[in-house]
Amino acid sequence: MTVDKLESGLNAVFSPRSVAIVGASSTFGKWGQLIISNIIAGHFQGKVFPVNPKDELICGLPVYRRILDIPEPVDLVFITTPASTVPGILEECGEKGVKGVVLITSGFSETDEAGKELERDIVNICQEKGLTLIGPNTMGIICPDVNFFATGAHTRPEKGSVAFVSQSGNLGLQLIHWAEQQGIGVSVFVGSGNEAMFTCTDYLEYLENDTCTKIIVLYLESVAEGSHFLEVARRINRKKPLIVLKGGRTEAGRMAAASHTGSMSGEDSIFRAVCRQCGLLDVNVPSELLDLSAGFSSLPLPKGKRVGIVTLGGGWGVVTADECNQRGLEVPDIPEGIVKTIGKYLPPFWSKGNPVDLVGTRDLDVPIVAVEELLKWDGIDAVISLGIVGRMELVRLLTESTRKVDNSISSEFLDQIEALSQQYEKMYTTRMVELMETYEKPVIGVSLTRTEQGTVRPVPGSPYSGVFYQTPENAVNVLSRMVEYRRFIDEQGLK
Amino acid sequence: MTVDKLESGLNAVFSPRSVAIVGASSTFGKWGQLIISNIIAGHFQGKVFPVNPKDELICGLPVYRRILDIPEPVDLVFITTPASTVPGILEECGEKGVKGVVLITSGFSETDEAGKELERDIVNICQEKGLTLIGPNTMGIICPDVNFFATGAHTRPEKGSVAFVSQSGNLGLQLIHWAEQQGIGVSVFVGSGNEAMFTCTDYLEYLENDTCTKIIVLYLESVAEGSHFLEVARRINRKKPLIVLKGGRTEAGRMAAASHTGSMSGEDSIFRAVCRQCGLLDVNVPSELLDLSAGFSSLPLPKGKRVGIVTLGGGWGVVTADECNQRGLEVPDIPEGIVKTIGKYLPPFWSKGNPVDLVGTRDLDVPIVAVEELLKWDGIDAVISLGIVGRMELVRLLTESTRKVDNSISSEFLDQIEALSQQYEKMYTTRMVELMETYEKPVIGVSLTRTEQGTVRPVPGSPYSGVFYQTPENAVNVLSRMVEYRRFIDEQGLK
Repeated sequence: MTVDKLESGLNAVFSPRSVAIVGASSTFGKWGQLIISNIIAGHFQGKVFPVNPKDELICGLPVYRRILDIPEPVDLVFITTPASTVPGILEECGEKGVKGVVLITSGFSETDEAGKELERDIVNICQEKGLTLIGPNTMGIICPDVNFFATGAHTRPEKGSVAFVSQSGNLGLQLIHWAEQQGIGVSVFVGSGNEAMFTCTDYLEYLENDTCTKIIVLYLESVAEGSHFLEVARRINRKKPLIVLKGGRTEAGRMAAASHTGSMSGEDSIFRAVCRQCGLLDVNVPSELLDLSAGFSSLPLPKGKRVGIVTLGGGWGVVTADECNQRGLEVPDIPEGIVKTIGKYLPPFWSKGNPVDLVGTRDLDVPIVAVEELLKWDGIDAVISLGIVGRMELVRLLTESTRKVDNSISSEFLDQIEALSQQYEKMYTTRMVELMETYEKPVIGVSLTRTEQGTVRPVPGSPYSGVFYQTPENAVNVLSRMVEYRRFIDEQGLK
Repeated sequence: MTVDKLESGLNAVFSPRSVAIVGASSTFGKWGQLIISNIIAGHFQGKVFPVNPKDELICGLPVYRRILDIPEPVDLVFITTPASTVPGILEECGEKGVKGVVLITSGFSETDEAGKELERDIVNICQEKGLTLIGPNTMGIICPDVNFFATGAHTRPEKGSVAFVSQSGNLGLQLIHWAEQQGIGVSVFVGSGNEAMFTCTDYLEYLENDTCTKIIVLYLESVAEGSHFLEVARRINRKKPLIVLKGGRTEAGRMAAASHTGSMSGEDSIFRAVCRQCGLLDVNVPSELLDLSAGFSSLPLPKGKRVGIVTLGGGWGVVTADECNQRGLEVPDIPEGIVKTIGKYLPPFWSKGNPVDLVGTRDLDVPIVAVEELLKWDGIDAVISLGIVGRMELVRLLTESTRKVDNSISSEFLDQIEALSQQYEKMYTTRMVELMETYEKPVIGVSLTRTEQGTVRPVPGSPYSGVFYQTPENAVNVLSRMVEYRRFIDEQGLK
């Protein structure tokens, strides 16, 4: 397929003006109910047409018997009815002038020989009728930029720059759920299903030119044409970091993958070695896909591997320095000038080195001064800031018990303390983002606690966002991968 | 110090009947306010006596000018006043017949020569007066069994079987906060501070005979007498698993530790190698301390390394199998009989192997049947169950949007769905715990989502608890460490 055709086909799928759902339902939990209620609850701006043979109204919308009964144009059709009904529906779609079809229905090539044949048949129909086909056996698609959430899981991440392509629907949707919880902005999600018409490589080529997408996340179990995939991936990775999890990297995983997607994944160790040669960011577990997405989509790339650490308590500085060393990052000593400047704010027994241990200070300026002093110095490429954002949680616990036990401390005063610490965290986040813009070096936060806000905290008007991981190991891992990617880009002479 | 004396001294500290706080305060955020409000808000059952020279009432309690003014016996005294005031207060404590002192105050051996001398002086006073001294420079202690929470951070975990000893107060308290969030029950927490009188090794010896404590977590930066520590640790680890994080395991970490606790940590690689020889569970990052605590305190030890995996979706089965292989666990194929039994509940195209992929079933019985079938078989030592507990979160998202968009589905019906899925997760947890009792094999859950409930979910009356990690890699890591510990115990001929 030419890239032009691919692009116009998939554009219609990801930005439809009108959508029909064949098999739409008001029976709670059926696929036809999951999809239509998600599209409507997500505030899709286009038109929505439920299609089924019995009902009059679904979600308050008139129901059509067949696609051909819909009196207006339809860009995209979801099908959730049994496999045997699909060829007929596709014929109607063709007649109606539909552009794309998302085929949720399973029971095709993932089952048996008859299923394989049926899958070949429907691809033929789609090609004949000029229909772009996603799936079959897909969990759906998401495009937050146009408020289009059309999957079985009702999770709706913010719009953003990270595209997700997943060969496992179940795993892919959980990734999207995590993206929502962590505040990671999404440009597109697609569950590629059986890949009857489009492979992961095709989606990659589409995303290469998608202006919303800056980072691409892939969950793969098998790649049909490995060398073509790698050629495309290598090219795209130079412009848009490609974060890849290959399921089936061990014998046990390969066996599981074979029974899951039905195709052998081949020589995995070779595949992964080549991935690394191409500079792809291959990871071991799904949670890393999200961690890397947060960092790469929100922070400037570090120019080198020298890290400054700012901490409220010594122990966290120690374990963070350990993690940095373990992952090939350096924690250089800092010059006398910086020690003097930061020292003005601290008691005489402070650490006087890197990590900068603020010994539990309650001074609100020194955490910011310390980060800026480190960023200013050309011996540092990135800063990790521990425990400043996140401290609010401990303050809240303290005000809560103080309210209970000491009525000599006024409730208004405690309200004020809570409000101030909330404001401070917001202000601190904004300052970190401003500092990143000024010095073009990443500042990675570690909250040390589970907070209600996500990992990523956008600051309006800035290309960067505050990023606060829960643990130092997450922050250090992401930073080390950003250093690795930057080195790859530099070696390629691309920046 | 003899073990008897150690025991009686520390018993008085961890189970006091009455407590005085010298430096008690109503000034929000001062140490004297943090400690007393925490003790009272935590519902300590003993008597509490604030001591300071100015106030009349603190937290509604009468304030005494000096320790000697308190008209009743005092078991334990917290001191938060400046270092220079401490010797005098200790003299008074001696006169009063106080048993233990928790010295929060800093400014001793962690600062300079004068501080070191002052610390020697106060140890002398304590020894002369028969006072048990914790600290100085400690963040306090916790003993949930008697509702005694006396630290600066107002976090109050449930009572349980895990003891925490930390050379870093800041890091230690965050661990306790995580323990609370994750539902891990705590027997004792102590921040060992400068260890003027008791070292970590002493605390270990105390915990050896503490009947509440079954698991011990240590955060170390330096060990004064390494060989004595290892001898004690080796002995105790055979009875109570000892989970250790040694800060300063790299050059950068060592430098940071030197400036934090003031003492060099010596040849770390040798120390760690010996730890492993002793079968200690050494970990790399603080979050692992919690993960292992949850598993070791809640699950039976696996007899071997063969894992059954039950999943709602294929992708998660694949990545979990990969992680198992990666960490030295096996995912054996399952016999025809089990395939048949489970197959009765599933469509014909299910995986028919291990991982058992339940292909998104909504049948409420089959997840339990699958786990039990695997446990019954003597080819399996442990089961990992993915996505069953945790699914409620996705159900809740679905009911929420259905309520908004489809008024043909009644609100009562949706309430019922939510209640049922909540009940099911509770029932499932109870069943898993019953199965663990029946088969004496661990079942480790993975929720795949951030849930409001913690990692550990106790089931009243059972020695075991449900354990649900957020990601498969956490579950697999813990399982692999349990296999390792069990092997060590077996090799020692201890079980």
